[in-house]
Amino acid sequence: MINVGRLLQHLQDLSQIGCNEATGGINRFSFTPVEKQAIELVTIYMEQAGMKVTVDAVGNLIGTYGEGDETIMLGSHIDTVPEGGKYDGALGVLAAIEVVNSMYEQQILPSKKIQVVAFKDEEGTRFGFGLLGSSAMAGLLTEEQLQHTDEAGISIEEAMKEFQLSPYPLVNAQRNDIKAYLEMHIEQGKVLENEGLPVGVVTGIAAPVWLEITVTGVSEHAGATPMPIRQDALTAASEMILAIERLLNDTTDAVATVGKLTVSPNGTNVIPGKVTFSIDLRDIDEQKVRSLETTILQQLQQIADRRNVTLASKILQRIKPAKADEKLQQQLAISIEKQGIRPYSLISGAGHDAMNIAEIAPIGMLFVRSKDGISHNPLEFSSDEDIIIATTIFYDSVVELSK
Amino acid sequence: MINVGRLLQHLQDLSQIGCNEATGGINRFSFTPVEKQAIELVTIYMEQAGMKVTVDAVGNLIGTYGEGDETIMLGSHIDTVPEGGKYDGALGVLAAIEVVNSMYEQQILPSKKIQVVAFKDEEGTRFGFGLLGSSAMAGLLTEEQLQHTDEAGISIEEAMKEFQLSPYPLVNAQRNDIKAYLEMHIEQGKVLENEGLPVGVVTGIAAPVWLEITVTGVSEHAGATPMPIRQDALTAASEMILAIERLLNDTTDAVATVGKLTVSPNGTNVIPGKVTFSIDLRDIDEQKVRSLETTILQQLQQIADRRNVTLASKILQRIKPAKADEKLQQQLAISIEKQGIRPYSLISGAGHDAMNIAEIAPIGMLFVRSKDGISHNPLEFSSDEDIIIATTIFYDSVVELSK
Repeated sequence: MINVGRLLQHLQDLSQIGCNEATGGINRFSFTPVEKQAIELVTIYMEQAGMKVTVDAVGNLIGTYGEGDETIMLGSHIDTVPEGGKYDGALGVLAAIEVVNSMYEQQILPSKKIQVVAFKDEEGTRFGFGLLGSSAMAGLLTEEQLQHTDEAGISIEEAMKEFQLSPYPLVNAQRNDIKAYLEMHIEQGKVLENEGLPVGVVTGIAAPVWLEITVTGVSEHAGATPMPIRQDALTAASEMILAIERLLNDTTDAVATVGKLTVSPNGTNVIPGKVTFSIDLRDIDEQKVRSLETTILQQLQQIADRRNVTLASKILQRIKPAKADEKLQQQLAISIEKQGIRPYSLISGAGHDAMNIAEIAPIGMLFVRSKDGISHNPLEFSSDEDIIIATTIFYDSVVELSK
Repeated sequence: MINVGRLLQHLQDLSQIGCNEATGGINRFSFTPVEKQAIELVTIYMEQAGMKVTVDAVGNLIGTYGEGDETIMLGSHIDTVPEGGKYDGALGVLAAIEVVNSMYEQQILPSKKIQVVAFKDEEGTRFGFGLLGSSAMAGLLTEEQLQHTDEAGISIEEAMKEFQLSPYPLVNAQRNDIKAYLEMHIEQGKVLENEGLPVGVVTGIAAPVWLEITVTGVSEHAGATPMPIRQDALTAASEMILAIERLLNDTTDAVATVGKLTVSPNGTNVIPGKVTFSIDLRDIDEQKVRSLETTILQQLQQIADRRNVTLASKILQRIKPAKADEKLQQQLAISIEKQGIRPYSLISGAGHDAMNIAEIAPIGMLFVRSKDGISHNPLEFSSDEDIIIATTIFYDSVVELSK
């Protein structure tokens, strides 16, 4: 069994590092003195849990328990968004350490090496480039990406050197020994709360494709242009937004969001001549994303044609979604059932390091209920009770897998 | 008959005052040296047309031809929007002067006094308060309104004093002797162009009511929130915008425009939590505007309720629409028919000084075809041919009315 008091204490103590006392928000960004302090604390926790601690070529903090050529990896991250909460990332790292600490105390020796990783820069706050450590581990990181700079013009590469890291060749951080990767993370949504469940098993990570749509009509005088002869970019965009919503309401799992929209010239008495809006489209199945994308663009074009406005679309970003491994999902479900809880499957709409690790290993994720779905905010909250249940389940799965 | 060459020359010469050579845009704002230069030129034109020229308490430039207790007033304005065109306002003043000039040359003496007015500050560019001269003449101007300031902090009152005007008591500018008011103006829309007609008779001025609508939903993670549990302020606003459009498509004359819309927080991967948008609603019938307003707000509330978002509405501005006088419309139609042109009636969606004068006198307006409906722009254009036809018709109506 896990040590509940120790876990909650660690969570509390780590949350003090980088905490803005005025707001309660946490600010821990990569390669900063604050992050260094957090790394030092987590290193102590890892060592107390019987782990040997190392840092890889790009700064991933790795604690190793047991021996063997094959690795069961447990991980998450300890950096935050600006004014972030205390659970996003930190809970996954500390729960994983607690799992190993409990095994260590109970002298449970794994058949495979267990490693706990605090991945470098998941959030991408400082350099505008996230999932840094996991992409290096998966062999996806490029030298070019290390040239991303922060607001002061310092590149990731320069920041690494300042922290005595030698990232090149990048292959030094790459891994091919991971047999299973497990991550525990807060849901950052309201699905578990709506279901009345403390935990859920992730079926996959629905990475987004981001599109930018530009609708161009004719900007004219709001008073002097009768309704039938208008080429209004905003009424056209409104019809498009509702078409996207209708299409996605008919699917399961997949979501699409128009989150950003700007109107030009944006005057009360001027018919909008141009509207630009974003589409964030996600599913865990890459084929389904592509098929939805095609259907959306077809429907938008039909609306544009009918309304005599023009449509332009641009892909801003396309991240590959990742499916969770069936066997790891089963193992987590079994551990959940042991606690008398109904196993419930859901997708992860948010991105995680597991998405990169899926390129080189089977992945599994356990979600913990988030209050009101709030995340990236000082109000982010998961109850002690839920955290204890989740870590107990996580512990059980890791012990089973490492037999 | 009118003197075509003189009119076109005056139009050309006045357009040089305040002209930005780089863009062709005209910048003539109230109580500036550039406006003063334009007033001096127009004063010369009025005097050459046989008129006695005066300036009233707020700066309206008035040329008087003939005598009598009753007045037929012809007017428009010579100020412009920033980077305005050469026809908006100026054409109406210069055509009116040409009408009187022609009567004077042909020794046609009116039975009533004819006055040509260049109204002070129609556009409201400098002080953000327009229709200044006509509202003073209609007795609608208040001392408070004279406290509007320009970007340098100078109030209308101060600017007036600098120009040797003594506006107080404001009743000094008020008039009660106007028996008919006629204004010739470019359409600033595409209705006449679509009808293939050089001129049209205005049935009324559809002054707007401006509403501000705020839709508040819940801002959540675009990936982590399934479609059915969203409270998306933007999809709700989109449905509202389409409802407004549908409602107005079923009416004649009335128009409604959502011209301004802002999304918050406006992030690609964040479900919009708040959307604020404007509604500009116009008709020439005040009762119809109020009834449409009620229906729109009811429909918006239904959509908000169904989508579990909240709705707030605020009236930003309400200007009273004005109907044109039936007899003056008939006279203009008769003069149009004399030119072998089909009389065509249309509403004015844009505001004009005539709107204020309607409070104290019967009004009539003659619209001249605008190329592509473009106005408030250096590309604003009406052909010489259309201007000649329109001024000839205007001349005929004035001569008939002044018999």
